[in-house]
Amino acid sequence: MEPADFAVRAGQWLRGPGPDSDVVLSTRIRLARNVEGYAFPNRIEAGARSALEERLRQWIEAAGMGEAHYCNLSEVDPLMQQMLMERHLISRELLQGEGDRGVTFASTELISIMTNEEDHVRIQVIQAGQTLQAALGQAIDLDRRLEAQIPYAYSDTYGYLTACPTNVGTGLRISVMVHLPALVFMDQMDKVFQAASKVGLTVRGFYGEGTKAVGDVIQISNQQTLGRTETEILETLANIIPKIVEYERGVRTHLVNEQRVSLEDRVWRAMGALRYARKMASEETLNHLSAIRLGVNLQLLAGLNMSEVNELFVITQPAHLQALKGRELGPDDRDVARANLLRERFKPESN
Amino acid sequence: MEPADFAVRAGQWLRGPGPDSDVVLSTRIRLARNVEGYAFPNRIEAGARSALEERLRQWIEAAGMGEAHYCNLSEVDPLMQQMLMERHLISRELLQGEGDRGVTFASTELISIMTNEEDHVRIQVIQAGQTLQAALGQAIDLDRRLEAQIPYAYSDTYGYLTACPTNVGTGLRISVMVHLPALVFMDQMDKVFQAASKVGLTVRGFYGEGTKAVGDVIQISNQQTLGRTETEILETLANIIPKIVEYERGVRTHLVNEQRVSLEDRVWRAMGALRYARKMASEETLNHLSAIRLGVNLQLLAGLNMSEVNELFVITQPAHLQALKGRELGPDDRDVARANLLRERFKPESN
Repeated sequence: MEPADFAVRAGQWLRGPGPDSDVVLSTRIRLARNVEGYAFPNRIEAGARSALEERLRQWIEAAGMGEAHYCNLSEVDPLMQQMLMERHLISRELLQGEGDRGVTFASTELISIMTNEEDHVRIQVIQAGQTLQAALGQAIDLDRRLEAQIPYAYSDTYGYLTACPTNVGTGLRISVMVHLPALVFMDQMDKVFQAASKVGLTVRGFYGEGTKAVGDVIQISNQQTLGRTETEILETLANIIPKIVEYERGVRTHLVNEQRVSLEDRVWRAMGALRYARKMASEETLNHLSAIRLGVNLQLLAGLNMSEVNELFVITQPAHLQALKGRELGPDDRDVARANLLRERFKPESN
Repeated sequence: MEPADFAVRAGQWLRGPGPDSDVVLSTRIRLARNVEGYAFPNRIEAGARSALEERLRQWIEAAGMGEAHYCNLSEVDPLMQQMLMERHLISRELLQGEGDRGVTFASTELISIMTNEEDHVRIQVIQAGQTLQAALGQAIDLDRRLEAQIPYAYSDTYGYLTACPTNVGTGLRISVMVHLPALVFMDQMDKVFQAASKVGLTVRGFYGEGTKAVGDVIQISNQQTLGRTETEILETLANIIPKIVEYERGVRTHLVNEQRVSLEDRVWRAMGALRYARKMASEETLNHLSAIRLGVNLQLLAGLNMSEVNELFVITQPAHLQALKGRELGPDDRDVARANLLRERFKPESN
């Protein structure tokens, strides 16, 4: 797999439409599993880790994932590593780890399995839009197929054993990525943070770091699984997400009806910057793309393809840009390359 | 004169090209004069002020100014008053004054005479570009024609007598308005301020308030006239202005050669905002127009008429906007009207 080919388009979860996709970008399920008889990755010896990585690869292949790719992180170059992270296929922890560790991901990128991350096995299912039940169902199905191959570390008392106690039990984390430009515009995000934390949910940014809503996108997820069933975790999310969606939609309607000029100003200034800037940093880009997404959703902008707009959230990131240009670029050159790409994508003729 | 008709286009000094007009917007000469036998305006009684205002009007008419208009400020509505100030035809002091006071200005707006401002007579000649000698010559010529009519208050010891001691002698102030976007961009304005203050010159903004270079435009002028001849004052300016012009040009060349992308980014982002914003405050507008002027001068932008760009510095001001719309507008509505006007003027089709 050539970096440039890989960089051209983002995964299906970001491109595809999905339920409530005006607000919900994606639903992500993560299951943490470990293999009986091996030390957790933070304790394992290099030799055992290598052997396990190889066995896991075979087990995963045997479980059947359709058309899929495997990367051993210790063997791929840093650019490809970072692209995998920008693509949400691997975690920062796997990227920054050492020794044999890898990821197997379906060509659709809707499924990925990290090996030798914090746990031996991290199953990820990520779908476009709000698909809590369906995504969880798919993750459980994949988990069962893997369980038929892999001797999981399991305790009748505690459930699945994990490297970090907070994940013990189901090993389940559900993350819903939501786009809340109207709530950010009206300075209402505190209410979302409070509502989420009240029911034990965590809020993070698009790439997980901190809680800063760069691009007006946040991920809402359960903090721990210990002592809670899959159904309980699912219900917490299933309960709050529709409320946040309705809240965002309500404020969008308010903006259209009561503050139309300010709204159009925000959307069209973003378009102006995307069409004309000669250099643009990553964070500024995400904020403009957010406004464009909002404009398309509210039909203030015509002729734009939403999946292409979504995709730009990922392919304007540093490693993707460098892969597209076919060479390493310093921060200044990336800002120029990013602006060039955006100018091309948003040029007036193409609308 | 209808406000709407008056608002459509700015004075010739701003529209017309002139020497060094890539950097120098205008050269302005002011002469302060008073009439023998009348108290200074800040001391004069209302009756005497009215009588003097009427006599001055006749004297000025007799001196001959070609096609000209007279406004008694106490009779024109506030919108027209403010437009006269935005047009640089009257001072803030005349606007905020009380009682009979006025302005007579040539239809070209290259000459104006304020009456009963701080002094009884304030002659103003304003020309496009750097025209120190020519503008001073024209002012002196007009002054002589007025002196043939008006018994000026004059002392053989001190020269022309004025309300404020700093103006005694020649009553001359020379102001050169310069556009220094490259120096602002490269954070070099301190050097200009220092160089000016070292030779006793003052630096103010486009509309005189403070020294903030809104729109990257500053006015450089002599602080006082007492004890100095016209020639000495002229030479101080004639000495420093070409240096500032060359400094600005040098930095522009540097930007084109060494920082072209940053320069284009600045210019094109301004264009993006002007073409797409739905509301825009006055100060932001001046800053974008500054970038556009720079872009036209450096041939980064084609198809734009410089005199129309310059004119926008004035006709996007609050009173002009309201006159163009034909009604009073609050600040928010002005921001919308301003953005509409700018969008129309900068729409891509017209380039």
